[in-house]
Amino acid sequence: MLSPTPRTRHRRMKDNGRTDPADLPEVLAAGLVAHLGVLVDGHPMVVPTVYGYDHQRIFLHGSVASRSLTTGAEVCVTVTVLDGLILARSVFEHGINYRSAMIYGIPEKINDPDDLLYGLRLLTEHVAPGQWDYTRRPSNKELAATTLLAIPLAEASVKISDGPPDDGDGPDAALGLWAGRLPVVATWGTPVADPLLPPGIKPPPHISTRTGRPISG
Amino acid sequence: MLSPTPRTRHRRMKDNGRTDPADLPEVLAAGLVAHLGVLVDGHPMVVPTVYGYDHQRIFLHGSVASRSLTTGAEVCVTVTVLDGLILARSVFEHGINYRSAMIYGIPEKINDPDDLLYGLRLLTEHVAPGQWDYTRRPSNKELAATTLLAIPLAEASVKISDGPPDDGDGPDAALGLWAGRLPVVATWGTPVADPLLPPGIKPPPHISTRTGRPISG
Repeated sequence: MLSPTPRTRHRRMKDNGRTDPADLPEVLAAGLVAHLGVLVDGHPMVVPTVYGYDHQRIFLHGSVASRSLTTGAEVCVTVTVLDGLILARSVFEHGINYRSAMIYGIPEKINDPDDLLYGLRLLTEHVAPGQWDYTRRPSNKELAATTLLAIPLAEASVKISDGPPDDGDGPDAALGLWAGRLPVVATWGTPVADPLLPPGIKPPPHISTRTGRPISG
Repeated sequence: MLSPTPRTRHRRMKDNGRTDPADLPEVLAAGLVAHLGVLVDGHPMVVPTVYGYDHQRIFLHGSVASRSLTTGAEVCVTVTVLDGLILARSVFEHGINYRSAMIYGIPEKINDPDDLLYGLRLLTEHVAPGQWDYTRRPSNKELAATTLLAIPLAEASVKISDGPPDDGDGPDAALGLWAGRLPVVATWGTPVADPLLPPGIKPPPHISTRTGRPISG
């Protein structure tokens, strides 16, 4: 994992490129939505989608009718967490604090029923921990309508930008302007009941206790 | 804008597909990071990047050495805002509340100095309003090191999912489980000064007044 190939070797902004194998699961744990890049009719298409993962694979799912859930050709899955803005003394040095992972691989369609349930469980529990046990699990008919793809985590590039602006010791420091970072604070809000929910049914603790907690730890 | 082509016509989840021309600028206004999908050596690559936009074009920038900022071939730029989780009575009906825009087009490199400054201003002011006037603007040397691409907004697909779970009037309602939405609450935090900043310099109001405000209106 994270052994550099020609395209995952960090070419630019080397200070942001990470090679610690622990950084990839950290970014995948912090993110919620991946952007899947595929080729459709020879052109790139980028689709947002939720995901799950284990030590070996990232899992994506969707309808069997989806154009983006294809196998056989290489895809790129990018997970990005925006942590804040880098506000410098010059426009040129502005930037963002972020954590991102780019994973390249050929998706494999999961057909084995046990592996399908395993992957869907990872996906559900990554986004909404506790819901796999709380809610009704997929029926055979629902499983037949679901495409689950797994992409190996073998080729990945991780970048983390968590520092202040770069121009604090350059000539622009003499401008006397404020510079620093403006963080993004993302937390879970208060659960909003389905309007069709009968009165008296409260959110279970695995949902209600998320309120106010940070989303991307 | 938003006139459907074969690939931007909404094929699935038609209830989420939007055709109101006002929806595209709304999604672009709410987002901060775009995911740019390009072809590199015949394979898709998806790169997170900030952006700016006007009524006609979306602007992306980066180093002149970047592999992803290429012209001549079609790209896909996707902007996604995650608004919350859809927590249903069954695993199958889980999903996310989101707003997303997918823009397809061939990037044009901006070479005209006035247009370059125009695009960089839009980009800076989208992410950090007020900073274009507050900080030092790009020098000619910095402009020469910057690639700015513009992609027409002519072909775009917008999807918005803002509703509750779909299974409130189905058989799973009899399970008696709580169901609804768990919102994402994203706000700007408190500015963190650059450690190299001399004491006594306070953040200007256009930065300090953002604290506590929602990021994706």
